[in-house]
Amino acid sequence: MSVYQPPTQDMQWLLAAVVQAPAALQQLQAFAEVDEDLMAQVLEESGKFVGEAIAPLNRQGDEVGAQWKDGSVTMPPGFKDAYAAFWHAGWPALAADVEDGGQGLPSVLAAMLYEMLSAANHAWTMAPGLLHGAYECLKHHGSEALQKRYLEKIATGEWLATMCLTEAHAGSDLGLARTKAVPQADGSYRVSGTKIFISGGEHDLSDNIVHLVLARLPDAPPGPKGLSLFLVPKYYEDGSRSAAYCDRIEEKMGLHGSPTCVMRFEDATGWIVGEPGRGLNAMFVMMNAARLHVALQGIGLLEAAWQTADTYSRERRQMRAPGRGRSAAEADLIAEHPAMRRILDTQRAWIDGGRVLAYRTAVELDMGKHHADTARREAAQRWCSFVTPVIKAAFTQQAFYGGSECLQVLGGHGYVREWGIEQIVRDARVAMIYEGTNEIQAIDLLVRKVLADAGTSFGNWLDGLVAELDLAVPSHPRVLQRVEALRSVTRQLCEAGQRDATLAYWVADDFLRVVAIVLLDWAWAQIGVRAPALARWTQPMQAMERWIAPELRTRIAVIESALAGVPA
Amino acid sequence: MSVYQPPTQDMQWLLAAVVQAPAALQQLQAFAEVDEDLMAQVLEESGKFVGEAIAPLNRQGDEVGAQWKDGSVTMPPGFKDAYAAFWHAGWPALAADVEDGGQGLPSVLAAMLYEMLSAANHAWTMAPGLLHGAYECLKHHGSEALQKRYLEKIATGEWLATMCLTEAHAGSDLGLARTKAVPQADGSYRVSGTKIFISGGEHDLSDNIVHLVLARLPDAPPGPKGLSLFLVPKYYEDGSRSAAYCDRIEEKMGLHGSPTCVMRFEDATGWIVGEPGRGLNAMFVMMNAARLHVALQGIGLLEAAWQTADTYSRERRQMRAPGRGRSAAEADLIAEHPAMRRILDTQRAWIDGGRVLAYRTAVELDMGKHHADTARREAAQRWCSFVTPVIKAAFTQQAFYGGSECLQVLGGHGYVREWGIEQIVRDARVAMIYEGTNEIQAIDLLVRKVLADAGTSFGNWLDGLVAELDLAVPSHPRVLQRVEALRSVTRQLCEAGQRDATLAYWVADDFLRVVAIVLLDWAWAQIGVRAPALARWTQPMQAMERWIAPELRTRIAVIESALAGVPA
Repeated sequence: MSVYQPPTQDMQWLLAAVVQAPAALQQLQAFAEVDEDLMAQVLEESGKFVGEAIAPLNRQGDEVGAQWKDGSVTMPPGFKDAYAAFWHAGWPALAADVEDGGQGLPSVLAAMLYEMLSAANHAWTMAPGLLHGAYECLKHHGSEALQKRYLEKIATGEWLATMCLTEAHAGSDLGLARTKAVPQADGSYRVSGTKIFISGGEHDLSDNIVHLVLARLPDAPPGPKGLSLFLVPKYYEDGSRSAAYCDRIEEKMGLHGSPTCVMRFEDATGWIVGEPGRGLNAMFVMMNAARLHVALQGIGLLEAAWQTADTYSRERRQMRAPGRGRSAAEADLIAEHPAMRRILDTQRAWIDGGRVLAYRTAVELDMGKHHADTARREAAQRWCSFVTPVIKAAFTQQAFYGGSECLQVLGGHGYVREWGIEQIVRDARVAMIYEGTNEIQAIDLLVRKVLADAGTSFGNWLDGLVAELDLAVPSHPRVLQRVEALRSVTRQLCEAGQRDATLAYWVADDFLRVVAIVLLDWAWAQIGVRAPALARWTQPMQAMERWIAPELRTRIAVIESALAGVPA
Repeated sequence: MSVYQPPTQDMQWLLAAVVQAPAALQQLQAFAEVDEDLMAQVLEESGKFVGEAIAPLNRQGDEVGAQWKDGSVTMPPGFKDAYAAFWHAGWPALAADVEDGGQGLPSVLAAMLYEMLSAANHAWTMAPGLLHGAYECLKHHGSEALQKRYLEKIATGEWLATMCLTEAHAGSDLGLARTKAVPQADGSYRVSGTKIFISGGEHDLSDNIVHLVLARLPDAPPGPKGLSLFLVPKYYEDGSRSAAYCDRIEEKMGLHGSPTCVMRFEDATGWIVGEPGRGLNAMFVMMNAARLHVALQGIGLLEAAWQTADTYSRERRQMRAPGRGRSAAEADLIAEHPAMRRILDTQRAWIDGGRVLAYRTAVELDMGKHHADTARREAAQRWCSFVTPVIKAAFTQQAFYGGSECLQVLGGHGYVREWGIEQIVRDARVAMIYEGTNEIQAIDLLVRKVLADAGTSFGNWLDGLVAELDLAVPSHPRVLQRVEALRSVTRQLCEAGQRDATLAYWVADDFLRVVAIVLLDWAWAQIGVRAPALARWTQPMQAMERWIAPELRTRIAVIESALAGVPA
């Protein structure tokens, strides 16, 4: 069995040398004191914690799973102690504000921590995974009274939180939700309804659980505008139990260590968060951050799969690899066979290029919030708006499909538990679905963001990408060409979209994929000018060009042939 | 939950109207009496048996799994009775010779039966899945004495069989196997060694289990030429137990109802099958048939996943689909959303096109064996030689990746057990690995078959494909163009291969993929001229052109850019 080792040195190098995050963040008053050394130190410490306390629990988490009995959920062995160590050490509060008990560090450090946590133990990480969103939501929309009671507990992770959105008939379409909230004379509400797919709806990790529940006031209109957000804790201040019940947990393909709960609210007392009818708005305040974290789950899981395949391929020998002299051993290493080398280098390219894009997005999140200059803030928000759906969809897809490629490197040994890689593939599959399915990310990108202003804002964002190329570097003009090809299909889609409103929905996935590959290529252009001439970096760079970039041809051909079908 | 329904009407139509199997097979003396009605009747009956007796056991097979205790394996509930019903009804013997207790029917009927069985219950089907191979192996290479004792028992399925090939350090590279066989004075051998990944090595389905074991005689040279094949039964004729022990079964990603055994042979008495040093040869007699069956597992599993996604998409509503009038319902059917329609139609195209190719291959297997004319036999063998690795790799890949796309149609409901689709995806993954990994299929095709005679035989086979096109049909010239593009890359690969022996190993997967897509396109050209103008057929046909065929651009680009790197 292979256990994930946090590759903090690589991560740190990409963050500092390629993304140049410390320099960028020091422009911000909030992070004027955060230099490269401090960031490296935090990263090193997080890696140590993740490697020692969290990674070793992954296998048992899968095998034992979360156990439901009579409405209570027992977490797998070691999960509870690890969680206590986690929040006592202040990890959940890394990027929370100092005034709320946080450490006030840049988002990117929290993002990198979650990359490592997800790689080490995706199921365990589901529990604290929603804390940040709940914190932001309460911070921006909660009343003073609610903040006083809950904000610090959530910021520090002493109490865990859930997002209760989905209902049996309302998944991607939350507007169909039927859970009711009836106002009471004392300003509280009684919440009733059943929510499904609630990660961490019930467990034994924290003394209390804070549920954020989408529900409908009695006089609310149908559809998404009729939804409000309510806070319902598991336990009230007086220690009494609320009427929020976990009726069962789901049997799933993977993620067995994370209880996916059916939660029944039965006239449960709660309080409104934000304005009536603005529930989705209150939840979506943290959407970009949440989707970035899911992208990093993808990157982390792919790294974990890659590490396993890499280790195996450098230990095991099978057959003669072509083009090699006969070694003394009776067969060559699996890593030396071209089909396997190709898989390993290709996934490596996705991981490291993906890190550049995700870390940069985390930096831009802080830029968009804290930069003194309005234009820079807007540029940062544009970056997050376009890149977030792309990396959420592309890297969760890669975690599953690329993880499966890594599994293939182990042959039959990949299909059995032994090396742990089949668990990674099973766990990873869910990330293509939750936090907005990958198809919804594609529609969000193309329909809601690119076409909405006929490509203007998207074009401005592409200008920014181009400005960061250095056309004197041999590989950069090729990236420029690809950006221009993307510009061209975008223009055509905008024109055709005016005559055919359905077209974009057919090819949104291809469009997102074109953006993803162009971005990955751009990221490798950035890595390329800074990386030492080691196989560690040159092989994935070649894989980008030889095995990944050619997909652009198919994706553009699909879009162009769809465009050809639109009447003039 | 959705349970697979054998789609015998569609299968029968593809077999008779498109593949024109009854007409082709009636040319053979062996099947002169087998007409379309008889074939339809056998198919109908098999579908009924599979749907009623086998499909309902699939879920429990996964949940309970095969259970090992003290060297014995208990199969999941219902498996034993279903197996008894299966062999008593004569199903395993469908295509076995009448003289061996079989029914002497065409291979294609057995192939279609296994397509349905795999779709209904992949794990259960693993048990009889090796019977046919063991039968052929014993029939062609077993001594008269061995045949007398074992052939009919295996032909009828009264006793089940295994193939004991893999060892812990010898998977794809069987030449590394170390199991020993020591000759005894009475002509028997004592076999010692440990084999892994032995499907059905131990179970309670049949009174005896016949192991075919690759092992090495004391004076054998190292490598594959030192391997001989031995038969070791679980029980001898006198009822005594052999020294073939099941030490444990593997925990796997899926296929829980099929025990994957570690088998330890400890001076177990057995008999040689075929000549010393010709063990691989004896096993590979049935390789094309076995790989065809695995291709059909892929097609079957994808059909099962598709049926689930299709049912779900026509029951559930989420959001408004673009380009539709507002219906009275509060949301539109999932099947009406372009991204979901695209998935469903694309997988449908793979399934039906795949059937045409697989059924045709099964017919060619019989043609290659039984046709009176040498040239026709050779053409048939050529078909099997080129098409078998392509469909094994392409359809097992599609079962997993396309099955995962079908899962996506169910959103979060796809990730939980409820609808059963996550099991299909988990079960399907193994077929990309066993019976020769998909990468080995690609090398088999390009290096061992196409390049071996500088593309001559492959070119002749392509001529045959072209001869079956009708250029007066509007869509056929496009298929011809694609065949010519394939011819062109093949020619370039043959030329470059003379200067660079490694190149082919880097791009073998792309080459196989080009052949697969061209073949699928060719199959749809055949379907297209015969299918009624119903959405059932026209939508997948459009999906072939819009969503599948464009992949050729990327694959050809990858090969061409690799070719560009070869020194002139």
